[in-house]
Amino acid sequence: MKLKREAPEMTERKLNPFRDPLSNGRDDPENALIESIVHFDNQEVCLRGWVQNLRSSGKVAFLQLRDGTGVIQCVASPKDVGEEVFSKIRGLSLETSVVLRGLVKKDDRSKIGFELVLSQLEVLHSTVDYPIGKKEHGVAFLMQHRHLWLRSSKQVALMRLRAELIKAIRDYFDSKAFRLVDSPILTPNACEGTSTLFETPYFDSVAYLTQSGQLYAEASALACGKVYCFGPTFRAEKSKTRRHLAEFWMVEPEVAFMDLQGDMDLAEDFIESIVQRCVQNCPHELATLERSVSALEKIKKPFPRIRYEEAIEILIKKKFPVKFGDDFGGDEETAISEEFDRPVIIHRYPKSIKAFYMREDPEDDRLALCMDVIAPEGVGEIIGGSERESDLSVLEKKIQEHNLSKDAFEWYLDLRRFGSVPHSGFGLGLERTLGWIAGVPHVRECVPFPRMMDKIWP
Amino acid sequence: MKLKREAPEMTERKLNPFRDPLSNGRDDPENALIESIVHFDNQEVCLRGWVQNLRSSGKVAFLQLRDGTGVIQCVASPKDVGEEVFSKIRGLSLETSVVLRGLVKKDDRSKIGFELVLSQLEVLHSTVDYPIGKKEHGVAFLMQHRHLWLRSSKQVALMRLRAELIKAIRDYFDSKAFRLVDSPILTPNACEGTSTLFETPYFDSVAYLTQSGQLYAEASALACGKVYCFGPTFRAEKSKTRRHLAEFWMVEPEVAFMDLQGDMDLAEDFIESIVQRCVQNCPHELATLERSVSALEKIKKPFPRIRYEEAIEILIKKKFPVKFGDDFGGDEETAISEEFDRPVIIHRYPKSIKAFYMREDPEDDRLALCMDVIAPEGVGEIIGGSERESDLSVLEKKIQEHNLSKDAFEWYLDLRRFGSVPHSGFGLGLERTLGWIAGVPHVRECVPFPRMMDKIWP
Repeated sequence: MKLKREAPEMTERKLNPFRDPLSNGRDDPENALIESIVHFDNQEVCLRGWVQNLRSSGKVAFLQLRDGTGVIQCVASPKDVGEEVFSKIRGLSLETSVVLRGLVKKDDRSKIGFELVLSQLEVLHSTVDYPIGKKEHGVAFLMQHRHLWLRSSKQVALMRLRAELIKAIRDYFDSKAFRLVDSPILTPNACEGTSTLFETPYFDSVAYLTQSGQLYAEASALACGKVYCFGPTFRAEKSKTRRHLAEFWMVEPEVAFMDLQGDMDLAEDFIESIVQRCVQNCPHELATLERSVSALEKIKKPFPRIRYEEAIEILIKKKFPVKFGDDFGGDEETAISEEFDRPVIIHRYPKSIKAFYMREDPEDDRLALCMDVIAPEGVGEIIGGSERESDLSVLEKKIQEHNLSKDAFEWYLDLRRFGSVPHSGFGLGLERTLGWIAGVPHVRECVPFPRMMDKIWP
Repeated sequence: MKLKREAPEMTERKLNPFRDPLSNGRDDPENALIESIVHFDNQEVCLRGWVQNLRSSGKVAFLQLRDGTGVIQCVASPKDVGEEVFSKIRGLSLETSVVLRGLVKKDDRSKIGFELVLSQLEVLHSTVDYPIGKKEHGVAFLMQHRHLWLRSSKQVALMRLRAELIKAIRDYFDSKAFRLVDSPILTPNACEGTSTLFETPYFDSVAYLTQSGQLYAEASALACGKVYCFGPTFRAEKSKTRRHLAEFWMVEPEVAFMDLQGDMDLAEDFIESIVQRCVQNCPHELATLERSVSALEKIKKPFPRIRYEEAIEILIKKKFPVKFGDDFGGDEETAISEEFDRPVIIHRYPKSIKAFYMREDPEDDRLALCMDVIAPEGVGEIIGGSERESDLSVLEKKIQEHNLSKDAFEWYLDLRRFGSVPHSGFGLGLERTLGWIAGVPHVRECVPFPRMMDKIWP
């Protein structure tokens, strides 16, 4: 059905460049957002955004408008917008900012199911020579223009998926009676060696940027029961790999009265929940990223759980020259994960290659009560966790064995002096998990402004 | 009605020190949490926690159990638990960790409406000489024991209120189609002078800890439309005040196509929403903090909006020696806020005392299109925001006038070169806002592990 439209009357209405910030983009056609365009079928809406693409013939122009929430094709013809505006539209350059009005129409050829029949358009700022054109650019160039690269469809999809993942993580823990208790970023002590620590003068002393909120989360768990912290962490990694960032976000649940078994149950349930929520809520973003949703739909409980020694056996069968006591690198993790179609939990590593705070296995004193979760598809470790040593004298001995300063850990030892309880937790790296869910192999795209050894700009 | 209870049978059941981490504390009596005890009226539950207080006579002992989500009175008598256990209970020391079982019973004298009739108790770890006793301690002592002080009822209430406030903030923006886009912590440039910046060696160069995510949020807004960032920010403030921390969390919405008017509308609606949500969801926490809820219930739109020049008039009437061009300190903010029973928005300050990126008022070139929100009750500024300068040449001129390095801002200037749009935003300091809502005068209690000039431990 073709609607009779009163173009002259509409073009007299002024276009408002300002949106109502309180609008959710769904309820008010004057403040519509492309992500919610389905709510405005057959209605006239006002959109604000940028020209992402344009093609035209003599009689019709197709403008791809992006508003940050999606992209919609806007169709302009001289009879709808007048000759003057039509000619202006045909001359629009990439990334020019515009306000426009038009009628939302179902269109089965459109990825989002709708297009817009333009009735009005005003230019806010004409862009000249936008640096990121339609041609292929190298990653170095794109990274140098990260502040502009963020506008491309794939990067917007990644940032939207990141936001959904963060929300999924927080909602998961909140729904299970965890409380968010933030750990500090600036810490007084170099806990596990200073080689990968960022250091800063702190008034008359010195401070370090945290590598993990765990020790503080342990104090919080003994105060609040079930807690998580979720914030930026830092590693001055002097290596360039696709899995490492100098600044990355980590979520770390810590639970009083939980053992290793519970820690694995929690990690498994948590990963299933956040992956399925992204599948559920981000179909458009995953499609834009050309991510196989069927690979993600397989991420369901139970996950395989193998002991470190079984992992060694798998590697030996695959001709890796490994023996008990060796740690796993990326290649080993990939080889193990290839055996499974979902994340695999490896538990009870040798204590010699693990941190001082992990509890020794009472059934085998060579082992620590710890676990890593290895994601499939070569992504590698996304979770590391353990039961924590809760016995004061054992922990004091371990601090000594690891040549750590006991003074630095006095407050941490207090947690074993006063009301010690069995407790466990884990850390999940946000960017690596996002890279896995998004099917993006390099973590540098999984954070808005990546920080790496050779990257501090913009 | 007195229930007939089968104590002998119950005491034979083993107590499990481990909780199911997937339980929300409401559905399963074996994994009950005190915050949800109402769901277990007249049922037997298993609780895990710490002894917060104990008093006893010959025939009955009253144990206050805290589990991090609340405190419940547990009543023990020899006939219910046996003479041996009863005698053990009477000897329990503060902060001893225990697992126990008992019957949940309505009790009108209880703050939470219920008490527990104990049937079993096992000690996990007996605490000797807990440093924080019932007597009054000085703040310096408590701050030095922050990792333990966090366990006290008031501090737990504050941390729970903090978690709810953070959730309220995130849910508010998410519900209005904002996307979370994290700004980086490590930044390459000292944007507004280096005097209050923390600096760190960054591989072969140097980096600074961010004082605000705004500039990056502007880039994100031009990519994603409506965004917010929410993370830790840093100020090396060389002053000791009750309003300042060296490390604090800030939420910063930034909206493309929004002017100062929209910015004020957003700030007002946002503050009303987060305050009312805390009132709604945290009655127990506010009661523990002895906070007047009626003062908070008044925080409803519309907020008074006055121009800077009107604020000057108020101050002159109150005998402050101020004139046009002066900035306001804490005393001035308090004096202005005393005139109102809800937050007051002061807008259009002289541009000479405001940041380079703020847009000049086209109607009065002495002024900037900016606003601060001053909370009542002497709390002071909780929000600062503005419309941003979107014209390239004006911004270039301002960078020069402020003696800033143009090179450092090349990427930021790109946002005005390519698809510039009017845009605005603000920043809200989390800890100061929490202090206001909680009625806690010093921000040091509003963060789990405060960092101040003289405070980096624990």
